[in-house]
Amino acid sequence: MPSHDFTVTNLGKASIPSPIALSKRSDDLMANYVSDDEMIIYDVQAVPGQPVSYARQELIEKAGPREYIYYDPSKVRAGILTCGGLCPGLNDVIRAVVMTLWHQYGVRSIAGIRFGYRGLLPQFGYDTIDLDPSFVGEIHRRGGTILGSSRGGGEKIEELVDSIERMNLSLFFTIGGDGTQRGACRIAEEIERRRLKTAVVGIPKTIDNDLSFIQKSFGFETAVGKAVEAVAGAHVEAHDAVNGIGIVKVMGRESGFIAAHTALGNNDVNYVLIPEVPFDFDGERGLLKHLRERLARRNHAVIVIAEGAGQEHLAASALTDASGNKKPGDIGIFLKERIADYFKGEGIEVNIKYIDPSYIIRSTPSNPNDSIYCTRLGNNAVHAAMAGKTKVLISLINNTFVHIPMNLAVSKRNRIDPESPLWRDVIQATGQPALLKN
Amino acid sequence: MPSHDFTVTNLGKASIPSPIALSKRSDDLMANYVSDDEMIIYDVQAVPGQPVSYARQELIEKAGPREYIYYDPSKVRAGILTCGGLCPGLNDVIRAVVMTLWHQYGVRSIAGIRFGYRGLLPQFGYDTIDLDPSFVGEIHRRGGTILGSSRGGGEKIEELVDSIERMNLSLFFTIGGDGTQRGACRIAEEIERRRLKTAVVGIPKTIDNDLSFIQKSFGFETAVGKAVEAVAGAHVEAHDAVNGIGIVKVMGRESGFIAAHTALGNNDVNYVLIPEVPFDFDGERGLLKHLRERLARRNHAVIVIAEGAGQEHLAASALTDASGNKKPGDIGIFLKERIADYFKGEGIEVNIKYIDPSYIIRSTPSNPNDSIYCTRLGNNAVHAAMAGKTKVLISLINNTFVHIPMNLAVSKRNRIDPESPLWRDVIQATGQPALLKN
Amino acid sequence: MPSHDFTVTNLGKASIPSPIALSKRSDDLMANYVSDDEMIIYDVQAVPGQPVSYARQELIEKAGPREYIYYDPSKVRAGILTCGGLCPGLNDVIRAVVMTLWHQYGVRSIAGIRFGYRGLLPQFGYDTIDLDPSFVGEIHRRGGTILGSSRGGGEKIEELVDSIERMNLSLFFTIGGDGTQRGACRIAEEIERRRLKTAVVGIPKTIDNDLSFIQKSFGFETAVGKAVEAVAGAHVEAHDAVNGIGIVKVMGRESGFIAAHTALGNNDVNYVLIPEVPFDFDGERGLLKHLRERLARRNHAVIVIAEGAGQEHLAASALTDASGNKKPGDIGIFLKERIADYFKGEGIEVNIKYIDPSYIIRSTPSNPNDSIYCTRLGNNAVHAAMAGKTKVLISLINNTFVHIPMNLAVSKRNRIDPESPLWRDVIQATGQPALLKN
Amino acid sequence: MPSHDFTVTNLGKASIPSPIALSKRSDDLMANYVSDDEMIIYDVQAVPGQPVSYARQELIEKAGPREYIYYDPSKVRAGILTCGGLCPGLNDVIRAVVMTLWHQYGVRSIAGIRFGYRGLLPQFGYDTIDLDPSFVGEIHRRGGTILGSSRGGGEKIEELVDSIERMNLSLFFTIGGDGTQRGACRIAEEIERRRLKTAVVGIPKTIDNDLSFIQKSFGFETAVGKAVEAVAGAHVEAHDAVNGIGIVKVMGRESGFIAAHTALGNNDVNYVLIPEVPFDFDGERGLLKHLRERLARRNHAVIVIAEGAGQEHLAASALTDASGNKKPGDIGIFLKERIADYFKGEGIEVNIKYIDPSYIIRSTPSNPNDSIYCTRLGNNAVHAAMAGKTKVLISLINNTFVHIPMNLAVSKRNRIDPESPLWRDVIQATGQPALLKN
Repeated sequence: MPSHDFTVTNLGKASIPSPIALSKRSDDLMANYVSDDEMIIYDVQAVPGQPVSYARQELIEKAGPREYIYYDPSKVRAGILTCGGLCPGLNDVIRAVVMTLWHQYGVRSIAGIRFGYRGLLPQFGYDTIDLDPSFVGEIHRRGGTILGSSRGGGEKIEELVDSIERMNLSLFFTIGGDGTQRGACRIAEEIERRRLKTAVVGIPKTIDNDLSFIQKSFGFETAVGKAVEAVAGAHVEAHDAVNGIGIVKVMGRESGFIAAHTALGNNDVNYVLIPEVPFDFDGERGLLKHLRERLARRNHAVIVIAEGAGQEHLAASALTDASGNKKPGDIGIFLKERIADYFKGEGIEVNIKYIDPSYIIRSTPSNPNDSIYCTRLGNNAVHAAMAGKTKVLISLINNTFVHIPMNLAVSKRNRIDPESPLWRDVIQATGQPALLKN
Repeated sequence: MPSHDFTVTNLGKASIPSPIALSKRSDDLMANYVSDDEMIIYDVQAVPGQPVSYARQELIEKAGPREYIYYDPSKVRAGILTCGGLCPGLNDVIRAVVMTLWHQYGVRSIAGIRFGYRGLLPQFGYDTIDLDPSFVGEIHRRGGTILGSSRGGGEKIEELVDSIERMNLSLFFTIGGDGTQRGACRIAEEIERRRLKTAVVGIPKTIDNDLSFIQKSFGFETAVGKAVEAVAGAHVEAHDAVNGIGIVKVMGRESGFIAAHTALGNNDVNYVLIPEVPFDFDGERGLLKHLRERLARRNHAVIVIAEGAGQEHLAASALTDASGNKKPGDIGIFLKERIADYFKGEGIEVNIKYIDPSYIIRSTPSNPNDSIYCTRLGNNAVHAAMAGKTKVLISLINNTFVHIPMNLAVSKRNRIDPESPLWRDVIQATGQPALLKN
Repeated sequence: MPSHDFTVTNLGKASIPSPIALSKRSDDLMANYVSDDEMIIYDVQAVPGQPVSYARQELIEKAGPREYIYYDPSKVRAGILTCGGLCPGLNDVIRAVVMTLWHQYGVRSIAGIRFGYRGLLPQFGYDTIDLDPSFVGEIHRRGGTILGSSRGGGEKIEELVDSIERMNLSLFFTIGGDGTQRGACRIAEEIERRRLKTAVVGIPKTIDNDLSFIQKSFGFETAVGKAVEAVAGAHVEAHDAVNGIGIVKVMGRESGFIAAHTALGNNDVNYVLIPEVPFDFDGERGLLKHLRERLARRNHAVIVIAEGAGQEHLAASALTDASGNKKPGDIGIFLKERIADYFKGEGIEVNIKYIDPSYIIRSTPSNPNDSIYCTRLGNNAVHAAMAGKTKVLISLINNTFVHIPMNLAVSKRNRIDPESPLWRDVIQATGQPALLKN
Repeated sequence: MPSHDFTVTNLGKASIPSPIALSKRSDDLMANYVSDDEMIIYDVQAVPGQPVSYARQELIEKAGPREYIYYDPSKVRAGILTCGGLCPGLNDVIRAVVMTLWHQYGVRSIAGIRFGYRGLLPQFGYDTIDLDPSFVGEIHRRGGTILGSSRGGGEKIEELVDSIERMNLSLFFTIGGDGTQRGACRIAEEIERRRLKTAVVGIPKTIDNDLSFIQKSFGFETAVGKAVEAVAGAHVEAHDAVNGIGIVKVMGRESGFIAAHTALGNNDVNYVLIPEVPFDFDGERGLLKHLRERLARRNHAVIVIAEGAGQEHLAASALTDASGNKKPGDIGIFLKERIADYFKGEGIEVNIKYIDPSYIIRSTPSNPNDSIYCTRLGNNAVHAAMAGKTKVLISLINNTFVHIPMNLAVSKRNRIDPESPLWRDVIQATGQPALLKN
C-alpha cells in the first residue's frame, strides 16, 4: 500500500486562547482540548508480530477544538458557500458552521455566498446573505441549500481570490465535491502566494460517496434510504404486472455505492449495474438472456442501475444532434429501450416500469443520523479554521473526526472494488451472476 | 339538473336470515340492520320554500348488512379480481372483502383471480388463489395488488361469463375503473340473460378520482400525499438553482384532480396545468412569457402538469415512428423541451428539474385514512352481494355508503369544473392567471 | 328530527365591490362569486314520494367569496388567535387566513394574538405579532401553533371586548374548540351590544371530532394516522411477548372517534373502549374474563382506550390527595393496573406495554389532506369575515363549505352513536362483543 | 491501555470446501474468500516514530466466508433465538441468517426457537418454527421479532444444553444483549465440556449501544431517529405553551448514547441527563434553578433524560409498597414531579408535557441503513458458524466486520466518556452547563 502524506498546513502559530472553556485534566468529567499531536492511523490491517512505525506524515491529525486559536474572533469575517448538485444535509452543515462560529467563538460576521463560486464573481451580481443563528435556526428541516448552488466557476482562481480579499474573509468554508475542493485547493495556494491570512476549510460533499479518504459522505445514508423507497415501488409495480420489469436509475457517475447499498437495503433487487463492473446486453451470459430466463421462472424482475454504468454501450449508440455533435444519452432510458426492443423481438409481452428518483433523493432533508453527522462535520470545520488550519477537509476516519489535506482527497476517486466484501454481499443478495459478460 | 335513475337490481328475494347478529331496536346500544327503504338524496342544493318530492328511483339506496340475505353462505363461492393500473388501497379492499365474507358470513370458498380479466380467460392459463384470512392478513401493509393486475380482457363477455359459470361463482367482485366496470356491467347483463344467479358488485378504482357518482375514490388521498412530497422536492431543486424550474407530471388523463389537490396541499406550486383548462405556450398571455416574467422576478418556478393536459399541443407535434404511425408523446417531456427551447432561444440560462413520480405514487401502500375507507368499501360490497344486489358499485355519497347502479357511474367522466370552488381555490393558491390563453 | 335555525348574522349590508376578480357568468371557464342565496340541506335522508319544503332558516348558507364585501380592505385590522390543546393543522389555518387577507383582499394589518384569549388580557402583557406572508410562509411544515396557545380566559368577556376595541379589530378569528367558540359567541354578542363593527368568525378545532355540525374536524385524519402508528407498535410489542397486552390511550374526552377510526385503520386492535359505550371490568361478560380467554387462545391482545372511557370506574376509585380532594385519575393507567392486578391474582404471567402517544399526536404537522382542508377553511373564514358575517363557524357539510351559526355548533357534543354504521364496523373489525357488560 | 485477547475459538479444522463459489485471485473482478490470517488492529491512535508490534491475540480476526468450512451443509441443523427487549432490526438479522444458510450454504433445517431461551426449556412447551426463505421473505418490513422474545432463562445452562443436544443443533445463533451473550458464553463452555460439535455465534443486540467492542449496535440509528421525532413533538408542545417544559424519557439504563445522539440530531434539546454524568436538582448550580432562569429568558425548555440517569435521587425517594419493599421508581415521572413541585412552590405556572416513546421506538422496523447493517451481520454470523467458529460475536470494528470473543464483549459496559468529543458536542449543542452539580 502506498504511503500518503497527511501533513496539514497551518497558517501560522495559534497563540490566542480559545474562548471555548474546556478542561486540560482527564479526571474532571469535562472534555479536553484536542492537541495537534493526537493522531490516528489510516489503514487498520495488520500482520501479527510484524513491527510497524509511522512517520508523522503517515498519521492523520484529529479534528476538534484547540486550546489556542489563530484568529481573534472579534475580528473574524467568515464566508461559506455550497456548490454542485443538491445533497441531503447541506443545510445542516451550514447551520452547524454558523452556530459554532457564533455561539462557541463569538464570531459575528458570517457571509452566506449565493449559488456557489458564482456568488464570488462580480459579473453575476449576487449579494451575500448575513448569516446568524436566527436565520439558520430551522433550515435543517428543509432539503437543499438555503445559499443556492451552481456548478462551475471554481476555475477562475484569480477572480475568486480577488473577491475573497475584497470581502476580507478570514475563514472560507467550501461545501462541495471533487471539483469544488479542487478549486478550493488552488484558491488556498493562490492565497498563500498572496500571503493572505485566509483559512480554506472544506466539508466534502458527494452523494455518490466517491471521494478518497472520506469513508462516509454526509447525505449518503439519506440518499440510500430514499432510493430504497423507490425500489420498493418498482418491485410492487413489477411484481403485480404480467412479466413486470422495474428499473430504477440512481446516482453514481463513477461509482456504484448508492446502487450497491440500495440493493442491500432492499431485498427485492435482482440486478445491480454499476460503473465499476462492465456488462454485456447480448450473448449467452449477457443481461438480456439472463433476464428472459428469470421472467420465465419468476414473472418479474427489478434492476437498479447507476447513472454511470454501461457507458460503453451508450457511447456506441450516441445520438447525433442537429449540429452533428454526439449527444450522450441516459443509461436508464437506454436500458429500458434495449429491454423493450429485445422482448418485442422475442415476441414476449413485458411491462416495464421505469423510475428515476434522482431529484426526489437529492432534495430530501437529511435523516437524523445524517443530521448528527453534518452537525459534527460543521463543528469541526470551524474548530479547524479558527485554529488556522488551511487546505484541509473534515472527514471521519475509523470513527474519528480528522483533518485531511485537500489535495489528497481530490487526487483519486473512491470506487467499489468488485473484489470487496461489499460487492460480494451485493452479488449474494441479488443472486445475479458475478459477471454478466461473455 | 337531469334526474338520474338510481334503481338497484336485485337478483331475487332475500329470504335467508343473515348470520350477522344485529339488532332491530334503536335503544339497545347495538347497531341495526339496514333496510332497502333507507335512502338518501344526491343533490344537496335547495331553494327555500320550494317543495321537492323524490320518486324512488331518484333516491340512493344505503349500503350495509341486510336482515335477510339471498345466498346460503355455506354454498357460496366468491371470486375477486383487480384490473388496470395500480392504486393505493387495492390490497385493503381485497382484505376487507375476504375478511367480511369469512368472519361475518362464514363463506369459505373465495377465489382470487390473477391479473384482472385475463385470469378468467383459459388461454392465459392462470390458476386462481384460494383466499382466506391468513393469506390476506398482512397484505394491506404492501402497495399494489397481491392478485396482480392487467389491462383489457373485459370485452370478451361470453368467454368471461363461461368461466364464471365454470367456476360456479355466486359472487363476483370487480375492483377497477371505468373500463373494468363497463365490462362488469355487460357481464352482469350476460349473466342475467343466461339466468345465472351471480351477483356482480364493483368497487370503483380511479386514482384520478374521475368516476361519476364517486365523490371520493379510494387511494386518491394517498396519491395526493405522495405527489405533494414530489412537489416539495421539485420546489427545493428549483429554488436552490439559478433560474430553477421544477416540473412534476402527475396522473390525470381526463381530469386534473390530483394536480389540483397537489397544488393546494403544497404551497410551492406556481402553475397547474390540467386537461379541463386549455392553455397556450406562446403569445402575450401564454405560459412561456408568464414564466419568463416570473423567473425575472423570483428566480424559480414550479409547474404541476396532469398527464392529460395540453393534448392539443402534443397532437400537433406528434412524432411519426418507423411505420409512419403517429406516436403520441408525453406531455411532461414535451413541456420540459418546449421550455428548454424557449429559454435557449431567449438566451436565458435555466435549470429544469423534471420529476415523474407516477409509479412511486401508484405503488405506495394506502395511508390510514384511505385504509379505513377501503375497509368499509369492501365490507359494504360483501353486504350488497350477499343480499343479492347486482350490477352495483359501492360509493360514499354525502358521507353515506350507498349502492350506485354500474351503468350510471360509467356513463360519464367526473371532471374539474373550472368554475367550481375547487379550481377557484387552486388559482388563488398558485397565483397563476385564470387562463393562460391568448 | 328537530329543525335547526341556520340563520347567519350579518353585520350590515355588504356594498363594497370585492377586490377579487371573479366572474358572474357560467360559461367562461372562470369561477363565480358565491351568493347568500346558495344554500344546501343538512339531512340527506329522504322518503320517496313525500314532499319536503325547507324554510330559509332550515337551510345552510354556502361559504365563499361574495361579490360585495362589508369592509374597506385598506382600513381593515384583523386579529387571530388559537386556543386549547394543540392539534395538527393550526399553522395551516393561520397561514391561509393571513395569505387570503393579504393576497386576495389586500389587508395589510394582521395581528397574531399570543397564547389564546390570554393574549388579549392586559395583565399578561403579551405583545401581538405582525403577521404577513413572509412570516407565515413556511409555518405549515411545523406542528403546533406559532401563536402559542393556552386554555381559559374566554370567560372574561368585558375585558376581551375592551381589548378588541382598543386594538381596533375589524375582523376577529378564533381557532379553537367548544369552549373557545362559546367564548367567541358571547364576545360577538357583547360586540353587538356595544354596536361595534367587528366580525367574529371561528374555525372550529377539535382533535376529538366532537363538535356538532362539524362533519370532519381539521387535524383529525392526521391524528388518526399517528394513532395508527402507535397501535402498530403496541401490536408488535404485544405479539412478540409472552401473553403480551398492548394498551394505547388516545384522545377523546367525550367521544371515541379517534379510538374508533384508529381501530378501523389498524387491523390489530382487539378491544376499543370509548366514552359512549359503558363496560364492566369484572363478571362473566366483563373485559377481564374476555381478555383472559383471548390470551389463552391467541397469546396477545391490543386495547385502544379513549381518555374519556370508563369514567365511572375511575370515579369509584379516585385517589384522595393531601388536602382531602378527590384527584381524578388517568383511565389508561387505571386500566393497565386493573389488568396487571387481575392477572397477578389469577397467577398468569402477562407483559403489559402501555403507550400514551397523546403529545406526539397533537404536535405533529398536518398531513397533505388535512393541510388542504385547513387551507380551504382559512380561505372561507376570510371570505365570510370580509363580507361582514359574524358569529359564524366555517364547516364542511355534505362536501360543501358553509357558514354555521356559532351557538348551534356549541350547543351539543357530537358523539358516536353505538347503533351507527361506524360503531358497527368497529365491532366487526375488532371481533369484540357488542357489549362488555353483565 | 490494557491489551485484550481477541483469540477466536474454533471447533476444529475446517476442511470441507465451501459451496460458495468465490475467487482466490485478486485481478478477476470477483470477490475472494477471507482467511483467518486477515486481521485488523483495534485502537487506531498512534504516536509518530514509535514502533508497535502486535501479538496475534491482540489483533482482531476478519469475518467473512472461508474457503473451507467445518460442517457438511447437508447435515447441518441450525437454531436461532432472540432475547430481551425489542429492538429495530431483529427480523432483518433473522432473515439474513436464514437466507444465507439456505441460499449460500444449502442448509435446509433451520429451527426458529420461540420466546428466547424459554423456547429451549421443555417446561414452557413451545414448539419451534421451521424457517425457510418463504417464511422470512417479508419479515424485515415488520418491527419486533417473529420468533417472539422474553427475558431470562439463560442461566439454566444444563437444561439449555440438554435441549440443544436433543434438538441436535450444529449451529446455535443467539441474538440478544449482555445477559443473553453471557448465557451463550456459558452454554458454549458447557458444550465444550460435553465435547459436542455445536457452534455458538452471537449477534449482539443492544438498543442502548452499550456493549464493549460493539462500535455500533444494530437498530441504534433507527432508535435515535424515532427519539428525534418524539423530541420534535416535545419541542412544539413546550414552545407553544406558557412556560412549556417538554420531557422525553429515552432508553439507556447504564449509558446515555441514545439521549446524547437524540440531542445532537435535534437542535431543540436544552438539557440531556444521562447515567454517566451525575446532576443535582437543588442548589445554586442544580437543574431546577437553571431551568427557572431559562424559562424566564426563553419561556420554554426541552429535557431529554435516559432511563438510567439520576438513580441516586430515585433511590433516596423510593416508594415503599404494601409489603414494605422498596419499589424503584421511574426517573422520567420522578423528574416531571420534582419540576412540577418546584415551580408550584415558586408560584410559577408551568405546562409540563411528558413523553415516553420507549415502546414506539423499540417496535419500529429498521430504517434502510440499519437494515443493511443487520443483513451483513447476519451473513457474517453464518459464515463464522459454518467455519466452526464458536463463542464469538459478530461486530463492526473500524469499518470491518470481525469476530469478537463473547467473553470480551460481555466483560464490561460501553459507556459515554464525559470527556469524549461526543459528550463535548452534546454540551455545546444544548448549551447546558458541563455539570449541573453544586
